[in-house]
Amino acid sequence: MKEINIGILGLGTVGTGIAKIVYDNGPLITSRLGAKLTLKKAADIDLQKDRGIEFDKGVLTADPFEVVNDPEINIVLEMIGGETIAKDLILKAIDNGKHIVTANKALLASSGNMLIKVAAEKGVSIAFEPSVGGCMPIIKTIRESLVGNRIQSISGILNGTCNYILSKITNEGISFETALAEAQAEGFAEADPTLDIGGYDTAHKLAILSSIAYGAKINLNDIYVEGITNITATDIEFADQCGYRIKLLAITKFTGNTIDARVHPTMIPFANPLSNVDGSLNAVSISGDAVGDMMLYGHGAGMMPTASAAISDTIDIARDLLNGIHTRVPMLSFQMAQIKKIPTQPIDEISTFYYIRFSAIDQPGVLSKISGILGDHDISIKSVHQTVRKSNGAVPIFMLTHLAKEAEIQKALAKISSLDIITDAPSLIRVEGTN
Amino acid sequence: MKEINIGILGLGTVGTGIAKIVYDNGPLITSRLGAKLTLKKAADIDLQKDRGIEFDKGVLTADPFEVVNDPEINIVLEMIGGETIAKDLILKAIDNGKHIVTANKALLASSGNMLIKVAAEKGVSIAFEPSVGGCMPIIKTIRESLVGNRIQSISGILNGTCNYILSKITNEGISFETALAEAQAEGFAEADPTLDIGGYDTAHKLAILSSIAYGAKINLNDIYVEGITNITATDIEFADQCGYRIKLLAITKFTGNTIDARVHPTMIPFANPLSNVDGSLNAVSISGDAVGDMMLYGHGAGMMPTASAAISDTIDIARDLLNGIHTRVPMLSFQMAQIKKIPTQPIDEISTFYYIRFSAIDQPGVLSKISGILGDHDISIKSVHQTVRKSNGAVPIFMLTHLAKEAEIQKALAKISSLDIITDAPSLIRVEGTN
Repeated sequence: MKEINIGILGLGTVGTGIAKIVYDNGPLITSRLGAKLTLKKAADIDLQKDRGIEFDKGVLTADPFEVVNDPEINIVLEMIGGETIAKDLILKAIDNGKHIVTANKALLASSGNMLIKVAAEKGVSIAFEPSVGGCMPIIKTIRESLVGNRIQSISGILNGTCNYILSKITNEGISFETALAEAQAEGFAEADPTLDIGGYDTAHKLAILSSIAYGAKINLNDIYVEGITNITATDIEFADQCGYRIKLLAITKFTGNTIDARVHPTMIPFANPLSNVDGSLNAVSISGDAVGDMMLYGHGAGMMPTASAAISDTIDIARDLLNGIHTRVPMLSFQMAQIKKIPTQPIDEISTFYYIRFSAIDQPGVLSKISGILGDHDISIKSVHQTVRKSNGAVPIFMLTHLAKEAEIQKALAKISSLDIITDAPSLIRVEGTN
Repeated sequence: MKEINIGILGLGTVGTGIAKIVYDNGPLITSRLGAKLTLKKAADIDLQKDRGIEFDKGVLTADPFEVVNDPEINIVLEMIGGETIAKDLILKAIDNGKHIVTANKALLASSGNMLIKVAAEKGVSIAFEPSVGGCMPIIKTIRESLVGNRIQSISGILNGTCNYILSKITNEGISFETALAEAQAEGFAEADPTLDIGGYDTAHKLAILSSIAYGAKINLNDIYVEGITNITATDIEFADQCGYRIKLLAITKFTGNTIDARVHPTMIPFANPLSNVDGSLNAVSISGDAVGDMMLYGHGAGMMPTASAAISDTIDIARDLLNGIHTRVPMLSFQMAQIKKIPTQPIDEISTFYYIRFSAIDQPGVLSKISGILGDHDISIKSVHQTVRKSNGAVPIFMLTHLAKEAEIQKALAKISSLDIITDAPSLIRVEGTN
């Protein structure tokens, strides 16, 4: 029987999951692939840790270069993460003619174009399904299932940590700080949660999805990023009263000329299925000119779901190898020569719907002053809600706007903030999926 | 530039959609595929109809054999449907060395194993993504994205007509008959709706999914099928009060020894995302040992969504052809030699949760008699609800059971039905996704 040899770099959560699948489901994989998938080498600094796996003799090594230099290994699965040693190892493996599977969204978002160019020149593939959305086949769906579609937009909940925290605030009415602390205690957030709650992890994933959706070179700096640290239980409660949930959304839209790509907390109406995605789950909604709207939903992270995506990519490459071919599907969905720089729309130039919350002194004429300034900036108010609750003598005023321009909203908010009657910085959340 | 020639059999809804995509998104497809996809021939009985497409000269023909015999055509897309002429044309096309894309679930469910065997012998592929779930990449996801997973179960809403009718009864409180008539008037149900509302269309799709999920030869007769014709607004209203929706579900579970495959109206708790799939939309939830639960959601039918799936299959075959290979992924997910007959579990042998509704004369001791018989059959009642509403002197009694055996439930219902105090045949709906 034919054999495909693989090597794993990094036996952290996902690397260990991959080894588990290869050992536990080996015969099943063989019955589908028609060849044996063999774990030849697996490298990690810590070889003492009990991972609950009985590795074959000679598989474990502390030296990752033993993996990338092994002449018998066909496919290297990079599960170390980060942008330093992982990059060097990938480049060395490519240079040695090995195909790559990686879950490294940070590296792909920053150096993806370079790595893919190098791989293409060497005639090997870089596969990256596990880098976005865990088990959800989002890369394969965009590249293969929607190949006949002009992709119009993608909206996704792509970070389980943020969704877990927002769900906790929604369901328990606790503060962001408490929810974050509990998420950390429960293992759903890192000790340093900046990458997740700051929206950067989501932006890395959005850069990858935008690239393959439109055949575009996306600069990570072109994506507007706003995290969830300022979301309050008050905003979530008000959203609920008006029929919305607040989610950290990755949004990318293609108008034909420019790409509007942004990551920010977003109010989504209950009727949109994304609003019902709770806890650490992920979901991605894709609009194409033929399929209309479709959605994928599942575990966006975790040992086995992400390992499953890595195995899927590995078998895809193995099938190519068994047929004597490579890179059957272009890595970035489009033929290399067709990939172009498409300008991104600065956040100032977008138009959308807005939720705004002000804290104002409870006195006559307040609403008139605020709405006057909004009117001066062509911002039309859809609904306004003023509650009787006071904190430090101030009352909260909530507003939902009709379609408005971001630049005008920002100017109006700056003016309103400077009024004497306003006691705190206003809160702004963009609204999607409504009209 | 390289060129792949395709031919379409049948310019009905989906066939026309395929032609639209090829003409409208041709350059886009070329920029992804790296070759031109050319519509060489398209056959239909009615060549006069305005389909809103300007076909290239010489493409249209009334003779489908002109398509399957054209030596320049590489891939034939069969969009005629049914089990007579479509089968002959597919066999002729295979014999001529052409690859096949088909949306014909009825033909696949009845003759799929034979057709795939013939195709394999001839060295060509039969692709069938458009046969199940419209635009949802359910076949590709099972065969490729979940290749490292032991598939444990699949539950799906796979018939838009049934879901549209059930949603109408749920939202408008109307009778099944009225909902069906309105669905027919709005073009969501055929003049003869038997195939849809009887559950047979769903069963065809379930047979295909079960085959590729487990590598099993599935006999259509092994699938238990119950349609939606007996669902009443009363049942739907009671389900709603208890936190459930009623959906026509295709269910397949693999225990390791037997397959439990069935189609029937099912009560699903609100917390299960399938319960929120409304109108003509489809959704499929898949459980695998690595991915846990994941879900696909989208338009399960219609011109463009189904055509999109057909184009996806076509490009997959085109990529193989451009690389000089064929059938890179086994048609039934497993290597031919690995496909076995796995016994299916008769419906009598399943254990699940049940909703039962009785109509009984309003007199003392009724509940005691009913619950006594249920107890005799080891059926434990989870909750019982008796309303004060009377129709013809009878009151409805609703029950939810704990886990019970189907054979026992049926015996108990037969005994209860024969009691003098029971005025109508009891209603039974199975409950899934609860405990």
